[in-house]
Amino acid sequence: MPRLLVIGGMAAGMSAASKLRRLRPEWEATVLEAGPDLSYGACGLPYVVGGITPSFDDLNALEPEEIARRGIEVRLRQRVVELMEGKKRVRVEDLASGRTAEESYDALLVSSGSALVLPDLRGLEGDNLFTLHDLPDGRRLSTFIETVRPRSALIWGTGYIALEMAENFAARGMAVTLINRSTRVLRNLVEPLRDRILRELEERGVRLFLETQVLEALGANGRLLALRTDRGELAADLFLIATGVRPATDFLRGSPVPLARNGAIRVDETCATGVHGIWAAGDCCEVRHLVTGRPVYIPLGTTANKMGRVAGTNIAGGRERFPGVVGTAATRAFGLEVGVTGLGPVEAREAGFDPAEAWIEAGSRAGYYPGGGGVLVHLTADRRGRLLGGQVCGPEGTKGRIDTLAAALTCGMKVEELAMLDLAYAPPFAPVWDPLLVAAGVLKGQLDR
Amino acid sequence: MPRLLVIGGMAAGMSAASKLRRLRPEWEATVLEAGPDLSYGACGLPYVVGGITPSFDDLNALEPEEIARRGIEVRLRQRVVELMEGKKRVRVEDLASGRTAEESYDALLVSSGSALVLPDLRGLEGDNLFTLHDLPDGRRLSTFIETVRPRSALIWGTGYIALEMAENFAARGMAVTLINRSTRVLRNLVEPLRDRILRELEERGVRLFLETQVLEALGANGRLLALRTDRGELAADLFLIATGVRPATDFLRGSPVPLARNGAIRVDETCATGVHGIWAAGDCCEVRHLVTGRPVYIPLGTTANKMGRVAGTNIAGGRERFPGVVGTAATRAFGLEVGVTGLGPVEAREAGFDPAEAWIEAGSRAGYYPGGGGVLVHLTADRRGRLLGGQVCGPEGTKGRIDTLAAALTCGMKVEELAMLDLAYAPPFAPVWDPLLVAAGVLKGQLDR
Repeated sequence: MPRLLVIGGMAAGMSAASKLRRLRPEWEATVLEAGPDLSYGACGLPYVVGGITPSFDDLNALEPEEIARRGIEVRLRQRVVELMEGKKRVRVEDLASGRTAEESYDALLVSSGSALVLPDLRGLEGDNLFTLHDLPDGRRLSTFIETVRPRSALIWGTGYIALEMAENFAARGMAVTLINRSTRVLRNLVEPLRDRILRELEERGVRLFLETQVLEALGANGRLLALRTDRGELAADLFLIATGVRPATDFLRGSPVPLARNGAIRVDETCATGVHGIWAAGDCCEVRHLVTGRPVYIPLGTTANKMGRVAGTNIAGGRERFPGVVGTAATRAFGLEVGVTGLGPVEAREAGFDPAEAWIEAGSRAGYYPGGGGVLVHLTADRRGRLLGGQVCGPEGTKGRIDTLAAALTCGMKVEELAMLDLAYAPPFAPVWDPLLVAAGVLKGQLDR
Repeated sequence: MPRLLVIGGMAAGMSAASKLRRLRPEWEATVLEAGPDLSYGACGLPYVVGGITPSFDDLNALEPEEIARRGIEVRLRQRVVELMEGKKRVRVEDLASGRTAEESYDALLVSSGSALVLPDLRGLEGDNLFTLHDLPDGRRLSTFIETVRPRSALIWGTGYIALEMAENFAARGMAVTLINRSTRVLRNLVEPLRDRILRELEERGVRLFLETQVLEALGANGRLLALRTDRGELAADLFLIATGVRPATDFLRGSPVPLARNGAIRVDETCATGVHGIWAAGDCCEVRHLVTGRPVYIPLGTTANKMGRVAGTNIAGGRERFPGVVGTAATRAFGLEVGVTGLGPVEAREAGFDPAEAWIEAGSRAGYYPGGGGVLVHLTADRRGRLLGGQVCGPEGTKGRIDTLAAALTCGMKVEELAMLDLAYAPPFAPVWDPLLVAAGVLKGQLDR
């Protein structure tokens, strides 16, 4: 019986194992997961901590019975420490006992995900210092909040998790401080949208310290008390580090599996690594950026799910392709939804384009229909009129507008086509000139000059 | 001083006049409007009647001062009765006096809009019989509701206006009955989505009589009392006819301006009619359907605005194209948003395609995030995998999903590309597998077989 061995039991791994078992019931599928939990929706962690989603159990993606029904064996707390490619085996550490053993495979899927990047700062430790990367992190954080009842939280970072946790700590009644080394908010947010988000955060009572260097972590008795920064000491009852992730591929260093400089696995459109029998999918991988054509590291659950399915199909002997991404990402910070797709002007320049850009603000609904509010749209294009990217921020409808731009980018649409797109209109949820059309019209005007 | 004469002062006409005056201030622009009102947002009429939008004045698209500032002369209650193409003149009836006069033009824009199609039924008249095509209709209906306080309304039709008025009559406390000759709801809604809408209407207390033939209008003393149908007599305090519109182009019969069989004006991508100096835009025109490549009559405000702008630019000597539409339309009925774009399976077959179709239901948000609900997505494709159309219905996010499909259709996207599209995800407003991706995956599976 041929055997698929899957390293990592989250979205990509479970999708692949499920797909393979469905297409090839004669295969065995064994998933080795380093953590103590079966597959769950990690993106929901902030909302359980905030109390919007009642319980961590609600995040379960697959019940144990369903996993059994699919004929997948999942082994928890099993960390792969070495790939023995020539022997078609991996060495696995049982985290409970510390003992290692070898496991053989016919096909290996690496879906080991990402690992946190923590700031290199002495003394950054304590009972009240947290990260929010996995379920154990979430449980520890929730328990702390419920037992200690902290009144203030300091979040280090301004990425998606940081913004989501600002909202959710506030929902728990904490005074929230957000700090970051640079002025950057989210991946590549342009100034007008960034300023709008920052204003929203401030209006909700979040204290902001951007361009702030952390010099020292001040603690006592196993507790972190404050961060000493170049803008003063910032104390809090609770500290959350959300400064980013990297591919969790240390065990592949020195193996023939091709890695990018940051450690991300290089795969082709079929999710094959080029090493016989070895596939990879999810947050441990690079993917192709469809606007630049170049590999990029943008670890996201949506991509992991798709790649897992593609890998599973191809391991089963099918033919499916994961073409790549356009760099779509979105979140909500309090009353504001924000999303990006494609390249911002800085990224466009870095990728060798000569970008033009425009931004506008327009209503999310017909002017006479109550509710809604101003939507900011920023578009980037090359001088020949090809759309390169877009960013949207507003009280509603942001996902839809970003998705529309993502479809346009995937097709290589021109700004003039976007300006004439036949978008849906009805007073309760759109104005007759959608903000996307307004922005495209303005950018087209600039390009025509 | 060259003169643009515009027939019809709604979206298309005012957009064109504004654009021309901005590009060519040396031109004179005179707008002849048959109605008594300056340009307004007609799509808002249901919401003023329902009390959601406070006043008809809120629908004003342009204040008189703004129109004057743009240097546009608007003459109200002026109906064009004849085109004298050889003389570059039109004959205009002043509706106040009944007198006619001639007006000359250098360029003529026909943006005369649409006219109601009323059922041909003897006795269909009365103080309590209404249509909702223009502002005078809206004012009359609102006055009736406020003075007579009707307790029941019968709506004849199941199009966009009919559904919107069902919601808005109910908001005014009326018991609502909806009747239609066929089983059709909206333009081309497929069965699962149609059934979902009908269930929503029934749950909100709307009585439905589909496949119902109206045999006789029963009235007395200037009031309509009931419609006698093949399913019994249907009485109401108020009757609204919403059975559709046709191009308002009777004055062009016998002129050289090319008309389609239904009277719609044929224009090219520049909005030119092919007759020297005569342009047309908006609800009086056919447009190109970008999926079939053929002309189609889909009168909508979004299209009228775009065509007006394009016509104005081209009359001014610029070069702008209105490529066409993909047949996008959307509305809301009570708690349900619904939208269509492209071709449904029946239309696809009529257009000569061999369509495949699939529909799914999936959540509008991550399963663990509260709120939202089930989204129905129906997709149609040709056998070679090209997306031909989509329909979406759900409690939220419908516009965005329809817009995404509209962008995909405009580019000729394949179903397999749609299934791998990099759509935005965040638990508060989307699941990790967006309903669009789920539907595309299912349809792809069918096509692969």
